[in-house]
Amino acid sequence: MNVSRGRFITLEGGEGTGKSTQSRRLAAALEAQGRKVLITREPGGSPGAEAIRHVILSGAARAYGPASEALLFAAARADHVDTVIAPALAAGTWVVCDRFIDSTRVYQGVLGSLSGDLLDSLEGVAVGETRPDLTLMLDVPPEVGLARAAARGEAADRFESEGLAFHAKVRDAFLALAKAEPDRCVVVDATVPPDKVAERIWETVVSHLSPAARTRRSTRRKKSS
Amino acid sequence: MNVSRGRFITLEGGEGTGKSTQSRRLAAALEAQGRKVLITREPGGSPGAEAIRHVILSGAARAYGPASEALLFAAARADHVDTVIAPALAAGTWVVCDRFIDSTRVYQGVLGSLSGDLLDSLEGVAVGETRPDLTLMLDVPPEVGLARAAARGEAADRFESEGLAFHAKVRDAFLALAKAEPDRCVVVDATVPPDKVAERIWETVVSHLSPAARTRRSTRRKKSS
Repeated sequence: MNVSRGRFITLEGGEGTGKSTQSRRLAAALEAQGRKVLITREPGGSPGAEAIRHVILSGAARAYGPASEALLFAAARADHVDTVIAPALAAGTWVVCDRFIDSTRVYQGVLGSLSGDLLDSLEGVAVGETRPDLTLMLDVPPEVGLARAAARGEAADRFESEGLAFHAKVRDAFLALAKAEPDRCVVVDATVPPDKVAERIWETVVSHLSPAARTRRSTRRKKSS
Repeated sequence: MNVSRGRFITLEGGEGTGKSTQSRRLAAALEAQGRKVLITREPGGSPGAEAIRHVILSGAARAYGPASEALLFAAARADHVDTVIAPALAAGTWVVCDRFIDSTRVYQGVLGSLSGDLLDSLEGVAVGETRPDLTLMLDVPPEVGLARAAARGEAADRFESEGLAFHAKVRDAFLALAKAEPDRCVVVDATVPPDKVAERIWETVVSHLSPAARTRRSTRRKKSS
């Protein structure tokens, strides 16, 4: 029996943009439509990747240089893709992932010291053909994101503990990525209440990933090439 | 004060070739000459790399795909080089390392499923300019190495538990690497008693890494180019 491939949707954005909440709501909405859905996240998402995530987030990562850290993130991603995401998509399951390649491009690339060439080749090794069909960039001004992250009262991780200027750079970097790949990325205003954000995300998913929408976009690409 | 850079010597070869023993003997001989010496090994060699080594060797690695595993080895090596090897060499210390880039080329490259291009670029990311000045390839027939490893009575790790045909391929792969880089690599017959192996290694180190030997080889390279 042929099963049509599932769709791969990623949610990206800085701290306090509501990615986890909106990932769960989107998964629930897709399930309500009768789809099989897998919800996952990075870094982590598979037992092998979680073992690596533990090393990265334990604080030891402060001591890792930028090259080691990028290699660790790529190793975790390769495992997550190979053992979780790719098999699910092949089985027809839709996959919703909280953070993926764009977070690496922002935190290790734009804000780190690694060359774009190096990160591109690591991304290629880790991801292969398993690229997102749609990426939702949840966007809030940095002071809003920072205040929300603080209000959650969670222990600040290494990125959350950075200042406002850093968060502003993160936001700009995500917006620049969205602009560079408009077919894949949609910026979603996440300053409005969660119900409104969920509504906007649902409209975007329907308009981008319905079979009709895909045909239209494919035709447009052919015409413009 | 200017300190002249230390020399970087690696020992390579299959299981049971005596790399650990000979690393210690070489380090002792260099120290007896009044040199500062650091003895280290891969995988591992630094706290950050040991954390990764634990993940790789714990058996979880069986579940990692070849790409994840190669990325993990590269991450561990990058940390080992950045935090241990490069600083030691810069301080004038000689570094003796049990396994390094050639083991990766053999176990993940020749015997694995990864492309040479991918491994080359990971090696470049991990190692940078910190390449061995001399590599001693300890060589024994595979049945000798296998018997010695078994006689040690240690728990067989994942490579030691492979059969004779595998060990023969490992040997061939190391010999091919030595042949491809004759200026860096010297094959040492390790079937003779340890004292004789240590003697041969010492002669090789003296003849390859004395200032006069380096000048001769540098002149030869210039002439041939």
